[in-house]
Amino acid sequence: MTDAQAQTSVGAQARERIRAGSTDPTSGLAPGLLQANLIAVPADWAFDMLLFAQRNPKPCPVIDVLEPGQVESALAPGSDLRTDIPGYRLWENGSLVDEVDDASAAWSQHPDLVSFLIGCSFTFESGLLDAGIPIRHQDAGRNVPMYSTSIACQPAGRVHGNMVVSMRPIPAHQVAEAVRITDRFPAVHGGPVHIGQPEQIGITDLHSPDFGDAPAIQDGDIPVFWACGVTPQVAIQASAPPFAITHSPGKMFITDAPEGNYRQ
Amino acid sequence: MTDAQAQTSVGAQARERIRAGSTDPTSGLAPGLLQANLIAVPADWAFDMLLFAQRNPKPCPVIDVLEPGQVESALAPGSDLRTDIPGYRLWENGSLVDEVDDASAAWSQHPDLVSFLIGCSFTFESGLLDAGIPIRHQDAGRNVPMYSTSIACQPAGRVHGNMVVSMRPIPAHQVAEAVRITDRFPAVHGGPVHIGQPEQIGITDLHSPDFGDAPAIQDGDIPVFWACGVTPQVAIQASAPPFAITHSPGKMFITDAPEGNYRQ
Repeated sequence: MTDAQAQTSVGAQARERIRAGSTDPTSGLAPGLLQANLIAVPADWAFDMLLFAQRNPKPCPVIDVLEPGQVESALAPGSDLRTDIPGYRLWENGSLVDEVDDASAAWSQHPDLVSFLIGCSFTFESGLLDAGIPIRHQDAGRNVPMYSTSIACQPAGRVHGNMVVSMRPIPAHQVAEAVRITDRFPAVHGGPVHIGQPEQIGITDLHSPDFGDAPAIQDGDIPVFWACGVTPQVAIQASAPPFAITHSPGKMFITDAPEGNYRQ
Repeated sequence: MTDAQAQTSVGAQARERIRAGSTDPTSGLAPGLLQANLIAVPADWAFDMLLFAQRNPKPCPVIDVLEPGQVESALAPGSDLRTDIPGYRLWENGSLVDEVDDASAAWSQHPDLVSFLIGCSFTFESGLLDAGIPIRHQDAGRNVPMYSTSIACQPAGRVHGNMVVSMRPIPAHQVAEAVRITDRFPAVHGGPVHIGQPEQIGITDLHSPDFGDAPAIQDGDIPVFWACGVTPQVAIQASAPPFAITHSPGKMFITDAPEGNYRQ
């Protein structure tokens, strides 16, 4: 078996475990494979959402789009978007109405959904680890902390909203290297959008993230913020399409695509 | 006046000359400023076209999208897409029905048009010239030769078609450098898609391009092919939306954006 085949098998196995009922966050799972955020909207909203992503490539780097009726991503043969994510959120008119671990029933009531897969920063975490940069939330067995910010995204048609960021505390002497490494992954949010000074982007309490778990910060760490694929969920709240399905923050779709394919 | 202001003024002046009636090809005009292909389709086709571009970033690198009713690009303040291109093609049901040098009348009959601006390889020509690589079609005072190929683009909804390429004959010892330079411009088609061996991509007669002028090839030149923003026009022919407006091949929209912004 080649390395590539072994990795593919790792991805399929991870999806199989999730399909069978695992609901854990996916950070650290299937290392080396691209993970993705999900946003699915009715066909009537698809252009606005794709344009929103095109105008905001840092938070919304599109890696695959599934047309109405499609549920198998080209990046993960045999996958089923309705079942292969550990947790889903269901939205109506901008309000979160349910969280489920199987979206099949909701999907069947909205067969015209267009699904966007958006690169996830979990993908570059193995690059950081390879460089000896600690991933504090992985070490603490927690989900990554994510925050709504005051940074306005470029609106597109009816879709608008502020950027969501993920935060990783990085030892001060390794922050520059973390920038260099993540700059090489533009398809998974690329380099940080902000380093230190959380209040400048509207984050008043670093210890109370809006999504995910509280951060594990050590002495000498600097908070480093990356654009986050949860941004479309805040846009859903602000823009209120009649219906939408997203992943639950931190619970991603695992593809078979080697993250090396997305490194420059 | 700063260099940036001087460049901006050059772009506005070029658009002004075109608006006043100049119909010449734009290769070599306003050096250092980003040039763009135009494809405008009815709103009902906008998602399919944007997705086609997203799936085919080499031929269709989107640099701006104007929503229904908009005619001023954010990349060129004061511009008017209906008048600021030297030549337009009007399409109905996939057939070319007219070529005009002012699209105002056609536009007024289709007020819901969504316009896509797609980066043009003219943008990287100044980078090639700076490196001492000749641009044969400029030297000969001709339009760049463009060819339909047998390379199928990734379809998106109703939009499908083969790739169009532009060709520049490059002295053999400078081909590698031409690759390096154009690789740095992913927003304007990036590096070549094919070098030499035109018959392998379905080009049977290099001297009879499908668009533009016949090539000016010198002894020792290798034909180098770049993905071309005319590709959406072939997709329009293949996919037959009820109506579309494009630029005429070689006659581009000149923005105020310094091409350096699009260099990696």
